[in-house]
Amino acid sequence: MRKTYQKLKERCAYLLEPGTAESGWAKAIDVFITLIIIVNLTVLIIDSVPDIPLYYRQNFYLLEVFTVLFFTIEYVLRIWIAPVTEVYSRFKRPRVGFVLSFYGIVDLLAILPFYLNFMFGLNYYYLMVFRLFRIFKLFRYFTALQLLGRVFRAKFQELMFALFFIIIMLIFVSFLMFYVENKAQPEVFRSIPETMWWGIITLTTVGYGDMHPITPVGKFLGGIIALMGIGLFALPAGILAGGFSTELQKIAQEDTEKDSKEASTTCPHCGKQLKE
Amino acid sequence: MRKTYQKLKERCAYLLEPGTAESGWAKAIDVFITLIIIVNLTVLIIDSVPDIPLYYRQNFYLLEVFTVLFFTIEYVLRIWIAPVTEVYSRFKRPRVGFVLSFYGIVDLLAILPFYLNFMFGLNYYYLMVFRLFRIFKLFRYFTALQLLGRVFRAKFQELMFALFFIIIMLIFVSFLMFYVENKAQPEVFRSIPETMWWGIITLTTVGYGDMHPITPVGKFLGGIIALMGIGLFALPAGILAGGFSTELQKIAQEDTEKDSKEASTTCPHCGKQLKE
Amino acid sequence: MRKTYQKLKERCAYLLEPGTAESGWAKAIDVFITLIIIVNLTVLIIDSVPDIPLYYRQNFYLLEVFTVLFFTIEYVLRIWIAPVTEVYSRFKRPRVGFVLSFYGIVDLLAILPFYLNFMFGLNYYYLMVFRLFRIFKLFRYFTALQLLGRVFRAKFQELMFALFFIIIMLIFVSFLMFYVENKAQPEVFRSIPETMWWGIITLTTVGYGDMHPITPVGKFLGGIIALMGIGLFALPAGILAGGFSTELQKIAQEDTEKDSKEASTTCPHCGKQLKE
Amino acid sequence: MRKTYQKLKERCAYLLEPGTAESGWAKAIDVFITLIIIVNLTVLIIDSVPDIPLYYRQNFYLLEVFTVLFFTIEYVLRIWIAPVTEVYSRFKRPRVGFVLSFYGIVDLLAILPFYLNFMFGLNYYYLMVFRLFRIFKLFRYFTALQLLGRVFRAKFQELMFALFFIIIMLIFVSFLMFYVENKAQPEVFRSIPETMWWGIITLTTVGYGDMHPITPVGKFLGGIIALMGIGLFALPAGILAGGFSTELQKIAQEDTEKDSKEASTTCPHCGKQLKE
Repeated sequence: MRKTYQKLKERCAYLLEPGTAESGWAKAIDVFITLIIIVNLTVLIIDSVPDIPLYYRQNFYLLEVFTVLFFTIEYVLRIWIAPVTEVYSRFKRPRVGFVLSFYGIVDLLAILPFYLNFMFGLNYYYLMVFRLFRIFKLFRYFTALQLLGRVFRAKFQELMFALFFIIIMLIFVSFLMFYVENKAQPEVFRSIPETMWWGIITLTTVGYGDMHPITPVGKFLGGIIALMGIGLFALPAGILAGGFSTELQKIAQEDTEKDSKEASTTCPHCGKQLKE
Repeated sequence: MRKTYQKLKERCAYLLEPGTAESGWAKAIDVFITLIIIVNLTVLIIDSVPDIPLYYRQNFYLLEVFTVLFFTIEYVLRIWIAPVTEVYSRFKRPRVGFVLSFYGIVDLLAILPFYLNFMFGLNYYYLMVFRLFRIFKLFRYFTALQLLGRVFRAKFQELMFALFFIIIMLIFVSFLMFYVENKAQPEVFRSIPETMWWGIITLTTVGYGDMHPITPVGKFLGGIIALMGIGLFALPAGILAGGFSTELQKIAQEDTEKDSKEASTTCPHCGKQLKE
Repeated sequence: MRKTYQKLKERCAYLLEPGTAESGWAKAIDVFITLIIIVNLTVLIIDSVPDIPLYYRQNFYLLEVFTVLFFTIEYVLRIWIAPVTEVYSRFKRPRVGFVLSFYGIVDLLAILPFYLNFMFGLNYYYLMVFRLFRIFKLFRYFTALQLLGRVFRAKFQELMFALFFIIIMLIFVSFLMFYVENKAQPEVFRSIPETMWWGIITLTTVGYGDMHPITPVGKFLGGIIALMGIGLFALPAGILAGGFSTELQKIAQEDTEKDSKEASTTCPHCGKQLKE
Repeated sequence: MRKTYQKLKERCAYLLEPGTAESGWAKAIDVFITLIIIVNLTVLIIDSVPDIPLYYRQNFYLLEVFTVLFFTIEYVLRIWIAPVTEVYSRFKRPRVGFVLSFYGIVDLLAILPFYLNFMFGLNYYYLMVFRLFRIFKLFRYFTALQLLGRVFRAKFQELMFALFFIIIMLIFVSFLMFYVENKAQPEVFRSIPETMWWGIITLTTVGYGDMHPITPVGKFLGGIIALMGIGLFALPAGILAGGFSTELQKIAQEDTEKDSKEASTTCPHCGKQLKE
């Protein structure tokens, strides 16, 4: 009995965990969950359009109920199978480990708002923002997105470094511009925090045009700031680009090593392993 | 008789195929077709100006008729010569191979709208868009444009990868901004799809200024988004720049190898081949 | 007596100089000064918001008085300890060396406006701008910001070079645009200096939209200028990015060398130095 | 007599040619001409400001007369000394060589408008644009600007290549946008040439906001175009950045080689040449 239970749990883990199987049911389940998330995000986007007729909205609600039920079952199953998965079995208490992990929190946030609204009548409008966090469930199935996370972790220090530069520069620049333009446009450059909005939109070269200097001194200063912007703001772009290329090279190298290792331990004729 | 026919076909292929001849008629025909395409594109652009007097428009129509006739003959000839060309002779059924190839479809789309309009009276306005596809006929004669295609194919996976990032980021960012700004500017940030327009215009640093946050929270969020934008959106630029430099190096290397190969097999004094 | 005085001075230098101690009081003082500067900058920013109630402003004034007193004591102490510090003890007259150094001037500018206002009743509004210079006091505690300074010094010549390009280009471009657009928009493209504002905002791709050509010739010229802009204005960004990567590599290398040097002169078992 | 004349010519060439002397009068003359050009450009810029009082304008005119006289003497002298200069003495007819060279034409254009206006009463307003060409006289004295020219020549083919891409892309993109937006905004997206203005301002990420799509299809298309823009338009920036770094490396290498060459042929102790 206990053995059957254990076997069932392992079978379930095999089916649910992404990337374990190369084909068959396990892959089908991965694709199905991915599809549900994408459909959900699409509905979330379409749902915000005010002209959508009520008829569709009702269908959207049905889909939401179905999704929450599905994700609830998925969440419960994932807690259940945590002790037999590769990642969480390393923890002392695998189930707690999963619940407190990134994916555990994401999975909970994907369903919690619905129940909070259902049980306590909390305003659904604000809770709906949490539905967006279902986007993070996608990370489980796309190695590309995990790469993004890895790059951020590898370049974290340098990025913080660049961010610190940018903040210091932004304060400096906004401060000066505020003193120069405030007298001429007291309603536009009202305060330093509001001038910082101008600062960031200019330094990133977005340039909406809702705020811009009109005095000669302000324009002179603004020109220098815009010029400095391209120099310093190229930093994070350079850091991230470098980080991605390094990570992509690492992956390529690992693949080659794996291949050559396999090649040296398998017979080149029959493909079977030579030594075990 | 059959032999003359075959010879005529080969002569025609020699004249029509780009890059086969170094001088003479074959080259003249290449230049002539290129010129017709460029004239056509120019007329297409000028034709859209509303102030153009009717007199010119009539000439434009005559040019269109001439172009379509010319391109029709070219298309028919290309089908005819397909079995003796270097590329399509490899196919089992060379003529079908050509018709279904990229250039075969482009050549057909360049003339089809005219006949559809002529025979079935279909609205010419919408068909005219297809005239733009004549731009792709240029690709046959410019290796630079073929390089573009090669870079895209070589970096396809990485570009899809970057695109996936960008879409996920765009959804995330637009979702948040919609919830923040919708209450303050219900007519501007009307729905998430409309906020995505703001998102892409901000993340690419274009910044038209038709939509921008006005609430303090929205401005704070918008500033962070603009800053993240330069980091992540530098990715495709980096990928493409890398791809182009790799392809250009490859071409340079091939040229050098070809030269050195030629050098080692030809006499340095008379330029004649040493061994055959 | 004299010995105690000397010892007190050395103790004080040990406590005040950044980076001398790895823990304890010296570090606590570093953190405390950093915090005061950050709080000060934050207050400076918030103080500019017109809606801040008077109650807060009075607290801000108290904080300002406290800060100035604290910074005055710090400044006096730093002059006093100059002869025993690593940097200024090399000078012939260490105290004059400190007062005329970058940090000496910054420290003075951080407190001078308050006293000038207090004693001579100078308009505080304009003096307040100098309060911003307290931001430079942060440089003492963040090696990241010192790196910025080093990169600027290392790449100074190249940056001046790029700046010279940019100015020549800006003059050329603004001159042409002024002659093209002045007749059509005499109130917008009023003079060459005003057209230079358009030039820099276009060449940096900020593009506020407050000034833009409306004549066909102006639009044609403007398009070419915008295109040239991305090419030439990428220069300073490239120079700075290169400079940062070089400096970061140098730091990494120095760390490695230091480690390997330590490794070869210390026992790998007990960590004690082998030879002296 | 003839010898004195020849000697005078050589002395004059020595004084006028840039970079021949390391100090003394020759250098002073270089600096003086550079200053006159810079003052001229400054006056040209200030002269365009409508609020400048008449008093200053009269001084500006006097300066103009002086400049033209000075540049005329310089031009005549340069023709005279052409046979003894390093560059033009290589030509069969050195004086014709100089007159038809880049600098010869620039020197003529710097003075011609004044005489044309003076003698034939041609409209000075349009001729004034040619005064801008005095900026090119600066190229003689700044090696940095000559570097710019060298990079452009070295990367000419690649830049033309990128330009061809950009033009094809611009046509394609503007054509599509015109068909999508023309019906909704017939007065804004009036014709394809006018849509090309939108195209270039979007693809370079300037984004003035004077033209932007308002239909959902147009916004969708515009988003994709903006995204493609950053990819393809990064090309010229990359090419130029690469070209500059290559040229700067070449200069550094040449300096090193020159130094090492000098080092190997001169005594390390006395600095005198070992062999002649």
